[in-house]
Amino acid sequence: MLIAQALKFNPNSVVICNEDKYLYVKEALSHTLVKVYAGAKAAEQIVATEEVDIVLTAMVGFAGLRSTVKAIEAGKIIALANKETLVVAGDIITALAKEYRAPIIPVDSEHSAIFQCLSGEEYNPIEKLILTASGGPFRGYTYDKLAEVTKADALKHPNWAMGRKITIDSATLMNKGLEVIEAKWLFGVDIAQIEIVVHPQSIIHSLVQFKDGSIKAQMGLPDMKLPIQYALGYPYRIANDYQRFSFTDYKNLTFESPDMRVFRNLALSFEALARGGNAPCILNAANEIAVEAFLEDKISFIQIPDMVEKSLEKISFIAKPSLDDYFLTDNETRIYSKTLI
Amino acid sequence: MLIAQALKFNPNSVVICNEDKYLYVKEALSHTLVKVYAGAKAAEQIVATEEVDIVLTAMVGFAGLRSTVKAIEAGKIIALANKETLVVAGDIITALAKEYRAPIIPVDSEHSAIFQCLSGEEYNPIEKLILTASGGPFRGYTYDKLAEVTKADALKHPNWAMGRKITIDSATLMNKGLEVIEAKWLFGVDIAQIEIVVHPQSIIHSLVQFKDGSIKAQMGLPDMKLPIQYALGYPYRIANDYQRFSFTDYKNLTFESPDMRVFRNLALSFEALARGGNAPCILNAANEIAVEAFLEDKISFIQIPDMVEKSLEKISFIAKPSLDDYFLTDNETRIYSKTLI
Repeated sequence: MLIAQALKFNPNSVVICNEDKYLYVKEALSHTLVKVYAGAKAAEQIVATEEVDIVLTAMVGFAGLRSTVKAIEAGKIIALANKETLVVAGDIITALAKEYRAPIIPVDSEHSAIFQCLSGEEYNPIEKLILTASGGPFRGYTYDKLAEVTKADALKHPNWAMGRKITIDSATLMNKGLEVIEAKWLFGVDIAQIEIVVHPQSIIHSLVQFKDGSIKAQMGLPDMKLPIQYALGYPYRIANDYQRFSFTDYKNLTFESPDMRVFRNLALSFEALARGGNAPCILNAANEIAVEAFLEDKISFIQIPDMVEKSLEKISFIAKPSLDDYFLTDNETRIYSKTLI
Repeated sequence: MLIAQALKFNPNSVVICNEDKYLYVKEALSHTLVKVYAGAKAAEQIVATEEVDIVLTAMVGFAGLRSTVKAIEAGKIIALANKETLVVAGDIITALAKEYRAPIIPVDSEHSAIFQCLSGEEYNPIEKLILTASGGPFRGYTYDKLAEVTKADALKHPNWAMGRKITIDSATLMNKGLEVIEAKWLFGVDIAQIEIVVHPQSIIHSLVQFKDGSIKAQMGLPDMKLPIQYALGYPYRIANDYQRFSFTDYKNLTFESPDMRVFRNLALSFEALARGGNAPCILNAANEIAVEAFLEDKISFIQIPDMVEKSLEKISFIAKPSLDDYFLTDNETRIYSKTLI
């Protein structure tokens, strides 16, 4: 896919993280001007090069952390699609971004919605953020019913076309949990200021309530092209001919509360955020291992939160972790949670 | 009521437009420091005095035009609650506001919503404005059923507490028609860029769609205190303890198309706006006379659009009216439409 994309878009450079594939990619692009690099280190270097204005951090999971840090230290504009970066090390990342004056523009649709709603509201403190959640394919399920779902069921997201990891996270509601943590760091709010509402149509992408009680919402058809494009063009909106939302097709928008007893990952996320320190890092690492195991048919759907919960109990808590502590916590959690499979 | 308000809020000055009541008001406030003036001219003068920073133009109907013009010419910030000013003479008013650098901040809840959504979007042209309408007390009625409604029925607005004139305008949907014209002038859009959607819960106050397809909406409980306060505080939102909106109380937000064949005032408004010139002025004047007649039990509910339509046919069209032409048109229309009662 990297080769196909490089041939189509003719970028300055590509990096293949898997070093074993370097020669294969290099060969395939040898008749082009595309420079080919390999390995995680190369990704970290390339984001800091002078030609780069904006870095869209779209790696999956914890793996995106190091290169995001490098891009921030190089003062690049960060279009943040890798929410795990903020989930794991939100304190360090936001402080770094401030120090290096690297603007962080969220790409996650909910956070893009909030970012759009906050535009022009620089004087006005946030009273509450309302993150919407589709509820995923298992909305309304009991815990017993959830115990029986298959991988194929979990990979069918009702509204959004996304990668496999995030699609499973959406089914377990861990995605929403990670987004709560991401929102806390992006917008500098307290946990008590973040509310989740299940909105199965995924039309209202999220909302901001200000101190005067006024609420702003960003809406549209669920299509990741829009928040990606918004982040790349900000502050300019780029005209496009994507399909438009119409109330004619959506005569009813509905809202309900999430069931945190059934979707335990959501409760665990709030708990991890309330504990702070390295707890969200543990939550994230355990979840990554659990989702991988689920996708490999090694554990059942409801074992995902079990693994997360046990990891949160087992791994040593660090109240004020350094960046190295986060890497150590991540590693320790992965090793431990694999023993739970 | 003016006396009671003056005693409560102790303003610098009050103006009683009805000059016959001058001595009565003067007497009642003689033990206070409140200055008392009388007559429409005094209202025009007082808005231009140096102590005044912002003028909330809340007079009902065409009567608000002259004092709004004076306030603009004095370079005051205009918090515009008197939509008729823009309906009647939108071209002249917007040009004047530009010339005198008088910002116009809308107070109408729909336009306040749009204004709030446009904050921070200075670079981004509007693709479409979506004005929401509650549909009023007669939503879903057939034309025949509408023929039988009473004044008491019409004065019962389902969501908003407002004055009598605007409450009747809401029941006939003329209010929404006037708002379309107001929106055209406030936000510089074409008639084809304005859509109306009936939203009976009155929670989403209006929406803006940008050229990238993204939609921003402003929401909240229907309470005029919020848009009034927003206009007075802009760009700062003033913290308050008004009741907050919660999705717990609104699990369903619904949307439908307005029926312009039943609510003919809405169709007539679009027609008047499409014709341009003094047509909206005729529409407004005929409507004011018709609503007054309806409130005095002199005509039926469905005769309101009849009177408006006949006036639009009868009164001479002027393509590029001067301010004086608007006053003449207004006067001529009132005289003519009274003959229809």
